[in-house]
Amino acid sequence: MGSPKSTSMDNGVNRTTVRVRFGDTDPYGIVYFVSYFRYCHRAIEEFLRACGLKPEETFKNVQEGFGLPIVEAWGRFRRPTKYGELLRIETSIQEIRAKAIIFRFEFYPETGRELVAEGTANLVAIDAAWRARELPERLKASLPPGKSNS
Amino acid sequence: MGSPKSTSMDNGVNRTTVRVRFGDTDPYGIVYFVSYFRYCHRAIEEFLRACGLKPEETFKNVQEGFGLPIVEAWGRFRRPTKYGELLRIETSIQEIRAKAIIFRFEFYPETGRELVAEGTANLVAIDAAWRARELPERLKASLPPGKSNS
Amino acid sequence: MGSPKSTSMDNGVNRTTVRVRFGDTDPYGIVYFVSYFRYCHRAIEEFLRACGLKPEETFKNVQEGFGLPIVEAWGRFRRPTKYGELLRIETSIQEIRAKAIIFRFEFYPETGRELVAEGTANLVAIDAAWRARELPERLKASLPPGKSNS
Amino acid sequence: MGSPKSTSMDNGVNRTTVRVRFGDTDPYGIVYFVSYFRYCHRAIEEFLRACGLKPEETFKNVQEGFGLPIVEAWGRFRRPTKYGELLRIETSIQEIRAKAIIFRFEFYPETGRELVAEGTANLVAIDAAWRARELPERLKASLPPGKSNS
Repeated sequence: MGSPKSTSMDNGVNRTTVRVRFGDTDPYGIVYFVSYFRYCHRAIEEFLRACGLKPEETFKNVQEGFGLPIVEAWGRFRRPTKYGELLRIETSIQEIRAKAIIFRFEFYPETGRELVAEGTANLVAIDAAWRARELPERLKASLPPGKSNS
Repeated sequence: MGSPKSTSMDNGVNRTTVRVRFGDTDPYGIVYFVSYFRYCHRAIEEFLRACGLKPEETFKNVQEGFGLPIVEAWGRFRRPTKYGELLRIETSIQEIRAKAIIFRFEFYPETGRELVAEGTANLVAIDAAWRARELPERLKASLPPGKSNS
Repeated sequence: MGSPKSTSMDNGVNRTTVRVRFGDTDPYGIVYFVSYFRYCHRAIEEFLRACGLKPEETFKNVQEGFGLPIVEAWGRFRRPTKYGELLRIETSIQEIRAKAIIFRFEFYPETGRELVAEGTANLVAIDAAWRARELPERLKASLPPGKSNS
Repeated sequence: MGSPKSTSMDNGVNRTTVRVRFGDTDPYGIVYFVSYFRYCHRAIEEFLRACGLKPEETFKNVQEGFGLPIVEAWGRFRRPTKYGELLRIETSIQEIRAKAIIFRFEFYPETGRELVAEGTANLVAIDAAWRARELPERLKASLPPGKSNS
């Protein structure tokens, strides 16, 4: 066997695949909008790993004195998807600011090009007192540049 | 005992209370942003019930030939909240369009006035073929007018 | 408004009501078995509160040097229940041992007597090194006696 | 890229890997027992796929007139696991009866042999009226024999 290998990074875009699972739908078998946000978090985790960053040391890091909470999120759900489907998430950095990162997510059928859903998530760097602070240098150095930043 | 009575409607605003439960937080004990979206759906359900509408006949209604999926959602998470806390959700209709309803959510500590989180959810009426259609008259007649609509 | 008041304690049995929510079902609209276990945890929380114990100081208590993880759980799901239904959970202590508590759960329709589902959860007291230890005296003194214990 | 390839079948045992995700833990960073049951369902799905059975046509199949709900589940949680860890699930059929299948699950660290958690899930074949019926022949023919059955 081996570790899951359903993720790849290419030109600042991470591609990862999620399967719609049994508990992910609404009572009518359509993916519940809340599940998309859960998939987005998973996509951030895979994006970070592809950059050599461990999520469990990045969302909260007591040693280095920072946290990285999600302070805003948005999603648009364009087409219904169903239990059992495979979705490809394309994740990129929409913007890097001094104290924040904005991720962008696009959901497609595993092998298709029709946009199923899209979204964003804003993460802000905070210190131990939960005040906004500069993004840690180590973090910025590991991430690809945001589109609006280049 | 009796039914839960943690919900009330006043001047177009529904107030309902949610408890932060064991599985609702991130690994650091702070409410996971995804849980807020789940709370939002629950708030819509309570809003509908307070209007005399059964959620299980409103999100999808085969007899009357309509559905009401969430096609867009947004949230901002201003302050961390923790396992065990009680949150008051104030839910109102931000806008009613010919084919859509936009709900607005504000989260407060149970007895406080400090905004903890806020969000919106856009629901669109669809027919059996998943095409946008006018909101059913029965539905519109049961809902309080949206703020932008009055 | 006020706090939710959907819980009561009577002769060692705590009754609490849960509503089947939008994300709680399988793709066919029937409550997902995993959701019952989530409801069980909620029932334990309400049971503890009815005994004057704060769940957030009971499942893990750094000051007093103990934790109370769930180490075993079982459930039987007898009848399908659906989105929107109200379920009454009757929670009692099946057994108190020197180092463990076993809770028992019975699920009924809100106003009926037909058993919908049942389950148990075993909690073990541990110390900071995650070794089994005696139940804290304060805890035992607050709980009603288990059935097998009386 | 391609489909996820984190699953394999060997001598009646399916091995699949799950990552502990952000929303899967309790407030103290330890995997919530409810998440294990969710992982078990995922393991059943991968088991079925490895047998050439589509889960979305197996848990409920209107054409062939059967359903396969989970009517009982049990789990024991031996060691704490944390956010970010990879777990290997070894899934086998413990028993096949005329009308039921019992799956058995063992959880290990991705590359270790120390049992982290274990569990079972009982699935019963039902007809459209939700009455127990014989397992469909097509299903039985696709599954490896249960241990107690050989």
